[in-house]
Amino acid sequence: MRFSVILGNLGNTRDRFCDSYKQQPTKREQWARAAAIVGVAGIELVGTWDITESSVGEVKGLLAEHRLRLASIIPDHFTSARFGLGAFTSRDPAVRREAVAHTTAMMDACAELGGDLINLWPGQDGFDYPLQADHVQQRDWLVEGITRAAAHRRDVRLALEYKPKEPRCFSFLARAADTLLVALDTGAANVGVTIDTGHSLMGGENLAASACLLASKGRLFHLHWNDNYRSWDDDLIVGSVHLPEYLELLHWLPRLGYNGWYSMDQYPYREDGQAALNASIRWLDGMARRQEAFGQDRFAALTTSGEAVRIADTMREFLGLDGAMR
Amino acid sequence: MRFSVILGNLGNTRDRFCDSYKQQPTKREQWARAAAIVGVAGIELVGTWDITESSVGEVKGLLAEHRLRLASIIPDHFTSARFGLGAFTSRDPAVRREAVAHTTAMMDACAELGGDLINLWPGQDGFDYPLQADHVQQRDWLVEGITRAAAHRRDVRLALEYKPKEPRCFSFLARAADTLLVALDTGAANVGVTIDTGHSLMGGENLAASACLLASKGRLFHLHWNDNYRSWDDDLIVGSVHLPEYLELLHWLPRLGYNGWYSMDQYPYREDGQAALNASIRWLDGMARRQEAFGQDRFAALTTSGEAVRIADTMREFLGLDGAMR
Amino acid sequence: MRFSVILGNLGNTRDRFCDSYKQQPTKREQWARAAAIVGVAGIELVGTWDITESSVGEVKGLLAEHRLRLASIIPDHFTSARFGLGAFTSRDPAVRREAVAHTTAMMDACAELGGDLINLWPGQDGFDYPLQADHVQQRDWLVEGITRAAAHRRDVRLALEYKPKEPRCFSFLARAADTLLVALDTGAANVGVTIDTGHSLMGGENLAASACLLASKGRLFHLHWNDNYRSWDDDLIVGSVHLPEYLELLHWLPRLGYNGWYSMDQYPYREDGQAALNASIRWLDGMARRQEAFGQDRFAALTTSGEAVRIADTMREFLGLDGAMR
Amino acid sequence: MRFSVILGNLGNTRDRFCDSYKQQPTKREQWARAAAIVGVAGIELVGTWDITESSVGEVKGLLAEHRLRLASIIPDHFTSARFGLGAFTSRDPAVRREAVAHTTAMMDACAELGGDLINLWPGQDGFDYPLQADHVQQRDWLVEGITRAAAHRRDVRLALEYKPKEPRCFSFLARAADTLLVALDTGAANVGVTIDTGHSLMGGENLAASACLLASKGRLFHLHWNDNYRSWDDDLIVGSVHLPEYLELLHWLPRLGYNGWYSMDQYPYREDGQAALNASIRWLDGMARRQEAFGQDRFAALTTSGEAVRIADTMREFLGLDGAMR
Repeated sequence: MRFSVILGNLGNTRDRFCDSYKQQPTKREQWARAAAIVGVAGIELVGTWDITESSVGEVKGLLAEHRLRLASIIPDHFTSARFGLGAFTSRDPAVRREAVAHTTAMMDACAELGGDLINLWPGQDGFDYPLQADHVQQRDWLVEGITRAAAHRRDVRLALEYKPKEPRCFSFLARAADTLLVALDTGAANVGVTIDTGHSLMGGENLAASACLLASKGRLFHLHWNDNYRSWDDDLIVGSVHLPEYLELLHWLPRLGYNGWYSMDQYPYREDGQAALNASIRWLDGMARRQEAFGQDRFAALTTSGEAVRIADTMREFLGLDGAMR
Repeated sequence: MRFSVILGNLGNTRDRFCDSYKQQPTKREQWARAAAIVGVAGIELVGTWDITESSVGEVKGLLAEHRLRLASIIPDHFTSARFGLGAFTSRDPAVRREAVAHTTAMMDACAELGGDLINLWPGQDGFDYPLQADHVQQRDWLVEGITRAAAHRRDVRLALEYKPKEPRCFSFLARAADTLLVALDTGAANVGVTIDTGHSLMGGENLAASACLLASKGRLFHLHWNDNYRSWDDDLIVGSVHLPEYLELLHWLPRLGYNGWYSMDQYPYREDGQAALNASIRWLDGMARRQEAFGQDRFAALTTSGEAVRIADTMREFLGLDGAMR
Repeated sequence: MRFSVILGNLGNTRDRFCDSYKQQPTKREQWARAAAIVGVAGIELVGTWDITESSVGEVKGLLAEHRLRLASIIPDHFTSARFGLGAFTSRDPAVRREAVAHTTAMMDACAELGGDLINLWPGQDGFDYPLQADHVQQRDWLVEGITRAAAHRRDVRLALEYKPKEPRCFSFLARAADTLLVALDTGAANVGVTIDTGHSLMGGENLAASACLLASKGRLFHLHWNDNYRSWDDDLIVGSVHLPEYLELLHWLPRLGYNGWYSMDQYPYREDGQAALNASIRWLDGMARRQEAFGQDRFAALTTSGEAVRIADTMREFLGLDGAMR
Repeated sequence: MRFSVILGNLGNTRDRFCDSYKQQPTKREQWARAAAIVGVAGIELVGTWDITESSVGEVKGLLAEHRLRLASIIPDHFTSARFGLGAFTSRDPAVRREAVAHTTAMMDACAELGGDLINLWPGQDGFDYPLQADHVQQRDWLVEGITRAAAHRRDVRLALEYKPKEPRCFSFLARAADTLLVALDTGAANVGVTIDTGHSLMGGENLAASACLLASKGRLFHLHWNDNYRSWDDDLIVGSVHLPEYLELLHWLPRLGYNGWYSMDQYPYREDGQAALNASIRWLDGMARRQEAFGQDRFAALTTSGEAVRIADTMREFLGLDGAMR
């Protein structure tokens, strides 16, 4: 398992009411804190916030200094007013071109920095009100823009990150299957999908089911990890709420041959960012190691037999939670 | 708009606690009640409950007697223990064969009765517990079974009905996009999708967005209508809770060239079934007529411009709800 | 911890589509299966299904034969058409009287059988449609009926079981706080509340928060245990989906001085009922024993400090899931 | 109906990703825009953002200049780091004192400005993780702080605004009933509750049911209006998604004798704030006027009879949506 973190998670994560839970550390401090987390080998950078076309050289130095690999760049299609009514699906063709141009610029930056993955999250591409979207036309624009970006260079992959809602009430890339359809519609082999575990839970998905669907089509490109209560993207420490579904996903990932990043994506508003990310990594590492020791074949046997009570018994044994009653 | 109803809605709809809200009318009474609803031109029949291989002749007579067309047959993959752990995705190959065989038998019955549509709802194909499903294998079986059924005869279409959950906690056909992917994976042109408006709302979808996606791929085959509170398949009278989203869907259907059935699918546990279905049809008919009179171009203009306040102003005008304040 | 089960969980649990997942065992078989579950000391009986006024003597014999105590009787306000539009809140005064009369009859039966607890679940008391309820009048009727029943005899306690929805779209007793208000409004000390863990999760509650609120007011009378995915009353094996919240609740119950029953309430549609209930009891027993060994003071310290990362670290230690990374 | 708006709704409403959807207008511009909305008679001010102890004189001038009444002040318990881990329920007694002191200061400012209502939204008082809260102690602190503030002066009322979540994953004031219990526990007659329609929908409530409960106890003090999709506080234009439930609430409010403010509370991120608030007021005004013309007695009759189909028929008639089919 190669762990990475999103740089901004080490900074001052704000919400719509309070923008100063913490003092904002400098970028250099954020890099240092990220690199100091045990087990972290890669870093994800958000466009505008963490990297611009003009700062590629500087970032190259930071990567070297901290012995980190670039896990991905997340182009900025969500922090500025220019994309506020949509990036790839804006009704303004100039804005749509800008969305593609920013993507291809970040692809070049990515390659220059030794990376091969763009995590594309078109968060503003969606709608808020019934009757507000031209569902046919706007989906066409979305496919068209991503297709164009993907053609820019084939050595950088685009992983589309889906999310049911936020910042729009409905996203055009909402769940695994609709996002996979968009990826397939581009006809480009370098377009795939990112599962953000919190987005998936929020979308009513079973995490492993989504991973299996995407991997079966060769499109599971990337993973973002966090936890929540299923109704919203709470971006909590992994394992805080759910456990069996993370274990199910962790069982399937090696079985599916996934060899990408395990990247932390949290919003530790009121916690020390470094400690919160570290806690998630330790959860994942602890669960995966125990799983290997316990025997992945025993987990596989559960999926083959489908017996509910046997699952419960096995899980209790796995967690050492069996009492005296048998 | 061609309206139809599901026969069983006229009977005693039960829940898991109470199985006798009403006295169960005879099948003949149910037919008579369905036929008497103003505007109803078609009927949907559920396998086992309403039709079997041996009752095709009798059903032919009932259709003629009541001057109804067969809107669809819904094969019974959900009412009996044999499919309790899955029909198309059962771990028992004999059960999987049976699921296909029942489907093809109902396809033959459908053609014999002048119909051309099977509404396939594999409600037991899903899972309840994390680690219970073999997501890869079972999806393969699902595609395989539907492919085989579809090949039985090409003059009858299979419309796959999705639903996020119930009776299983997670369904393999959960939402529009994943179901479309299954349909496409069959490689068969006679496999498409049914939107049940309640299932779609419950799945966090925007109704029109799902219709647009499916129609764009030529796979919007059928519609079931009811309403709910978005968290469960309450099967209420249409328009009881939502209005703008039904208006949005009703705007798009003609725009997308949909010319299939508008079929009522409710569970009027405590209401007179005939009156409850009639109420839904009158809602749909009333909304659609007003929309034509108001001008579909005005609705189209909203989707083109995407302006939220203009939508609100137009909707108030449409509903005659503008007060004195301007 | 005194464990009990609801008798009907050992029978054929049906849903609205399929009423024959299993062959229905006889009542005698259900009793035998319940009694054979390791750790079970008590039984809950549902009115009509499991006990009537005329079968009290027979039940007394069964209790003695199986060395079980009566944990509670759940009067039947939900399985028959007479209460289909409400029991305590029916618009028909005769029905409201009947709801009270059935309750007091079950109170007498309970006392006769050595019990002191009625679990009152007025599942049909609610509404489905906006504008359908007279929220003021019907709540008054609810308080009035419960007050009257509670006055029948003070040696039997009434534990009101809340549930956000099902079988009605909205229940009058929906969550812990509104149910507590009803209990307090009766002015009767023998009226309290049941937490069904699944109903609480489905209602968006934190389990421990509800227990603390009720216990602080001296009204936490009873507990039903099961698990779900937060959107519906899936009635799964405890611990199948959630873990930290059960641990939090299990920490608080002794701290709050709760000394009532830990009663299993599941719908193991497709599982062996005995095995499924046994699995839940073993989960609870295993979690509670480990917690005692680990030190409840360490859990208490988490609630005192409120530190998120410390919670994560402690939970990993508790579950033995720490990997090598520190 | 006396309409008011929250001043900040006219400004740059930001989310956690984008803080610049619009250029931030000056406070003077916001006041002018608010005052120019047809029908607006009152204004709500948020502490820190819109009013401080030292700006009371200035605000007095603005109220006079714009001929607006002060609908309420919303003390700032949510925008700064000092209350980030809770205000009234902070583990630091100094912070708890500060929460009360800020409230009483705003009560004085309110009275000085001719108002009599504080809308108290302790948004940071809640928790994010299982095991993070001391549910008993923290609720006691909450009651204690509000009791102390309420005693400061009895001529200013405190309306507690509940919300299931955000910015915390769980709020201590989550829904109508638990908030009413806190209000009652203060023993102070000047403590009541605000219903924010969006928070109520998000909490799974029926709007009218909550209004009836609170008004029955004499504690319905204030109303905030907006709309959403039930899973999150989307803060949309009223009537964008729901209609029947707003009509139900508008029917009950006069019936319950509510004579407080109808205050708009939206986040029109991408819309012109003035136009978006105006749209909501026109919806409410239009619905209420039509309702009066149609006959409130006809709505009352629906709640008395509880007949679902009659509700549907009446609603279609009310909206003029009956087609030709009868």
